[in-house]
Amino acid sequence: MWRSLLPLGLNPDTGGYRRFAWNAADLACREWFRSEAAARGLDVETDRNGNLWAWWGPRGPGAIVTGSHLDSVPDGGAFDGPLGVVSSFAAIDVLRARGFTPGKPFAVACFSDEEGARFGIACAGSRLLTGALDPDRARGLRDLDGVTMAEAMARADQDPETLGRDDERLAGIAAYVELHVEQGRALAFTESPVAVASAIWPHSRWRFDFTGEANHAGTTLLEDRRDPMLTYATTVLAARKKAKLGGAVATFGRLVVEPNGTNAIPSRVRAWLDVRAPGDEILAAVTEQIVQAARERAGRDGTAVTADRESHTPIVEFDHGLRNLLAGRLRQNFGAVPVLPTGAGHDAGILAAAVPTAMLYVRNPSGVSHAPGEHAEVRDCLAGVTALADVLQELAQ
Amino acid sequence: MWRSLLPLGLNPDTGGYRRFAWNAADLACREWFRSEAAARGLDVETDRNGNLWAWWGPRGPGAIVTGSHLDSVPDGGAFDGPLGVVSSFAAIDVLRARGFTPGKPFAVACFSDEEGARFGIACAGSRLLTGALDPDRARGLRDLDGVTMAEAMARADQDPETLGRDDERLAGIAAYVELHVEQGRALAFTESPVAVASAIWPHSRWRFDFTGEANHAGTTLLEDRRDPMLTYATTVLAARKKAKLGGAVATFGRLVVEPNGTNAIPSRVRAWLDVRAPGDEILAAVTEQIVQAARERAGRDGTAVTADRESHTPIVEFDHGLRNLLAGRLRQNFGAVPVLPTGAGHDAGILAAAVPTAMLYVRNPSGVSHAPGEHAEVRDCLAGVTALADVLQELAQ
Repeated sequence: MWRSLLPLGLNPDTGGYRRFAWNAADLACREWFRSEAAARGLDVETDRNGNLWAWWGPRGPGAIVTGSHLDSVPDGGAFDGPLGVVSSFAAIDVLRARGFTPGKPFAVACFSDEEGARFGIACAGSRLLTGALDPDRARGLRDLDGVTMAEAMARADQDPETLGRDDERLAGIAAYVELHVEQGRALAFTESPVAVASAIWPHSRWRFDFTGEANHAGTTLLEDRRDPMLTYATTVLAARKKAKLGGAVATFGRLVVEPNGTNAIPSRVRAWLDVRAPGDEILAAVTEQIVQAARERAGRDGTAVTADRESHTPIVEFDHGLRNLLAGRLRQNFGAVPVLPTGAGHDAGILAAAVPTAMLYVRNPSGVSHAPGEHAEVRDCLAGVTALADVLQELAQ
Repeated sequence: MWRSLLPLGLNPDTGGYRRFAWNAADLACREWFRSEAAARGLDVETDRNGNLWAWWGPRGPGAIVTGSHLDSVPDGGAFDGPLGVVSSFAAIDVLRARGFTPGKPFAVACFSDEEGARFGIACAGSRLLTGALDPDRARGLRDLDGVTMAEAMARADQDPETLGRDDERLAGIAAYVELHVEQGRALAFTESPVAVASAIWPHSRWRFDFTGEANHAGTTLLEDRRDPMLTYATTVLAARKKAKLGGAVATFGRLVVEPNGTNAIPSRVRAWLDVRAPGDEILAAVTEQIVQAARERAGRDGTAVTADRESHTPIVEFDHGLRNLLAGRLRQNFGAVPVLPTGAGHDAGILAAAVPTAMLYVRNPSGVSHAPGEHAEVRDCLAGVTALADVLQELAQ
């Protein structure tokens, strides 16, 4: 099952994946999901927001749902997302081998556009489902080629007019459990191959537009320049410093420079800041300090800077009852497992606002994620499947 | 004539031009050149390196040549290059109106790929002509889509196998005079609409590859990161500082980030440095200081940096005899005109290694160049045509 998914969307030059919402690789992954579900006699439906649901047995209220996503960041790794989907199908295989039949409706979900790599909004599928993303805004989001999300969906035969909060579907879910590869290396220092999630750090994405004046790189005196690259560079270093002082993390990883010519001073540097912190107040304070540093330097460079928050996810505390149930059940097979917070966003974090939600992490020896080096050992992945089967059996009996 | 050229390769979103070597806009400009030549009864040939030559009367040795280029930087202005070509044709019109017929072979040249916007090497056409660019290296240069210069030429019906130094053609040129819009604002402080060039600053382009490790922007601790964006940002600020202290100019205007995702620490930042200085020693010293600053910061960031010089043009002193002849002739119509150095490279700077070469500058009120705001007043452009006609008449009589 894993092997048939591996080649889809692989970039042979980098060893990373380019599975972006509704692109050819993403559609191939969705097809893979249908075929794995069909091989198990599961009944697949696509919801109004483009998320896939594979039902084991009859649909109905009080459903136990597991799953994750299949899309990737640019040149991302093989595990972030796919490990949860593959483990969900594998857990069904384990439960059937145990002779177990769920006593409640049971589904494997594959959420659309979790990484937001194409349209800039992470967890778009689960945000639309829960109403956290306005359907009109979503339809109008554009990728770097100017294609809107509505156009991309329509090309993939997904009706963009039906987007929006789906109360009936949400009301029918009793619990959602997502298994995910760990994206740090906390478990590498423990004996445990798995952990239970406690909370997700609050997370914001900001778009900074640094604007100056394009001009000739050879003939424009330094004192005549209004070079936004200088303002940007100062902001990058300020983000690192302020994050360190505040106990947060801040990253400038995406950039568009105009006109992007070797012999032209840029007219504009557009850059995206990803910032996360242990609490909402720290997040706000660190972000404000970074914006302030950008403004101060812009004043000296003769440039202008605007900072727009493109998305914000407040701190998510996972359902305490469900979390304790998972930790209790896992103790039987794995002993006491760690309960850890994370800086990574997940569909589970979005769904937590509407339904009881929990997460399991599988050990990542290097902590590398969102990169080709992302990895988990086979024995830890198998432990993850067992752990997921255990908790699903407990929930769905 | 000017009006028919203006729409070619114009990007309506920015008001700038995207005429890159051998692209559709560039081919349209070349077609425009042929048709303007034909309208004047000039005989057009394409040389072995893709440069265009329009002959007024019989070809032959001892030729007087004027001209410039028609390609642009990304979102460049309307004047850099085209003003010289348009003024060359207009100067022929003026000379004919004066009843002048050249006593020597006389040509208008349009050099190919002056800006190097597509393949990264400025003045590729004149460098190939004079042997300053190796034909094999040129053929193998790739644009951002991976298309080689050889492929781009072949698609435009230009045989890439004939590239290389053209001794016969060079030996047949007695003088080359290039008119160009000024790319600073020295003339804005004078009464003179035109100036004569004294020298071109030495100029290098370097490619910096900052490499680190792609990783998750939310879960990777700051102390576990190897983030090349930090090393890059420090280098940008160091370049400014070292250039200022050394009396040089240094610019980072072009950047490619991988994987360029909002929630991924970059694995690589590739950036191009453009550096120019009044003398070769200053240029070398400032560049070395910038590379050194990059290396020092890379050591602290756990990243690696390589710096490769992609091109270098030593200082060019224009032919003193020709320069004095121009200044003397212009004094009759314009009084004493300024004689100025410039930080901008030109085909004239390349040709100066092989033939007596001179340049005329036309006043640019704002000094803006390589940007949509690049401008010259009509009366100054007309003065430029008169000045060019005067010197060409003197040379070709």
